Amino acid sequence: MKTILRQNVPITEPHRQENDAEHSWHLAMMALLLAEHADEAVDVARVVKMLLIHDLVEIDAGDTFIYDVAANQDKEEREQRAADRVFGLLPEDQGRELRGLWDEFEARTTSDARFAHAIDRFQPVLLNVATQGLRWKVHGVTADRVLARNRVVGDASERLWSHLQDLIADMVEQGHLPPGPQ
Amino acid sequence: MKTILRQNVPITEPHRQENDAEHSWHLAMMALLLAEHADEAVDVARVVKMLLIHDLVEIDAGDTFIYDVAANQDKEEREQRAADRVFGLLPEDQGRELRGLWDEFEARTTSDARFAHAIDRFQPVLLNVATQGLRWKVHGVTADRVLARNRVVGDASERLWSHLQDLIADMVEQGHLPPGPQ
Ligand SMILES: [Ca+2]
Repeated sequence: MKTILRQNVPITEPHRQENDAEHSWHLAMMALLLAEHADEAVDVARVVKMLLIHDLVEIDAGDTFIYDVAANQDKEEREQRAADRVFGLLPEDQGRELRGLWDEFEARTTSDARFAHAIDRFQPVLLNVATQGLRWKVHGVTADRVLARNRVVGDASERLWSHLQDLIADMVEQGHLPPGPQ
Repeated sequence: MKTILRQNVPITEPHRQENDAEHSWHLAMMALLLAEHADEAVDVARVVKMLLIHDLVEIDAGDTFIYDVAANQDKEEREQRAADRVFGLLPEDQGRELRGLWDEFEARTTSDARFAHAIDRFQPVLLNVATQGLRWKVHGVTADRVLARNRVVGDASERLWSHLQDLIADMVEQGHLPPGPQ
């Protein structure tokens, strides 16, 4: 987890990519502080637990960049295989509990899972906003794709989704993010 | 937190020091998996929350190496000042809640705080064991000091403390850690 690099950079060290351990800590902290903005009631402790473990499958499956269409096609299959192995390393009761939590996160059928997803999507946007769209520029991402990819934030929190849309509009206005393909 | 370096190294990347965000994620995961070994009943969700925030004061106060006697003398004063400022940045209710949790962690008067401390002490030992005492060697630390410094693990869990003592004995036997000053 400390070795698996993501596509985003820490705000304080924009010359390097952040890893899954840092990302997971950041998400857990955000969940603690932002849970009050969830539309439906959430169990913060469960959301935090879900976020701490949600990327463990990347130990085998690696990080799949959200705007990489090809890699996202077999992502689910790769991650299911990884979940079998990684959670299988634990004592049976613990493996079953954490696998259940991961399955719930992936399925997004509970309010806890939907809020956890919203946080997981919101954090990279914040990192990009704080670095003038650094990684969006590297990958040539446009505002229409950022909005389409992160629309799920609105499934958990109208307030976070509306804040996210404002941030994107500001980035477009400041010239850090093209509105769409020319 | 992603910038503040600690004295230990990630097992998978022993050429660099780990940072506070990685450390905090690792501790939270360990608490989830090891809580069943606590001697007294603990509230895992509170322990996890405590561990996620316990190093936020290092944003101002920096990391103080546990075997650095001089730096540990004004550590408490530096960290209290940092807690005032860092938790003071939050909305009042959230700042009060997290400051209370941090004060509880520092005071070690509850079973949750004692177990959180045990995990915070156990993790660096595990990292050193997994890297043949790499950072102990760099700092010339001896087994008697490791045991003295980590005795608090036994205040929360006889099983973890006994396991820690076994690990240290193995490291001494394998020649990775001198038993005491010559
Ligand atoms: Ca510390």
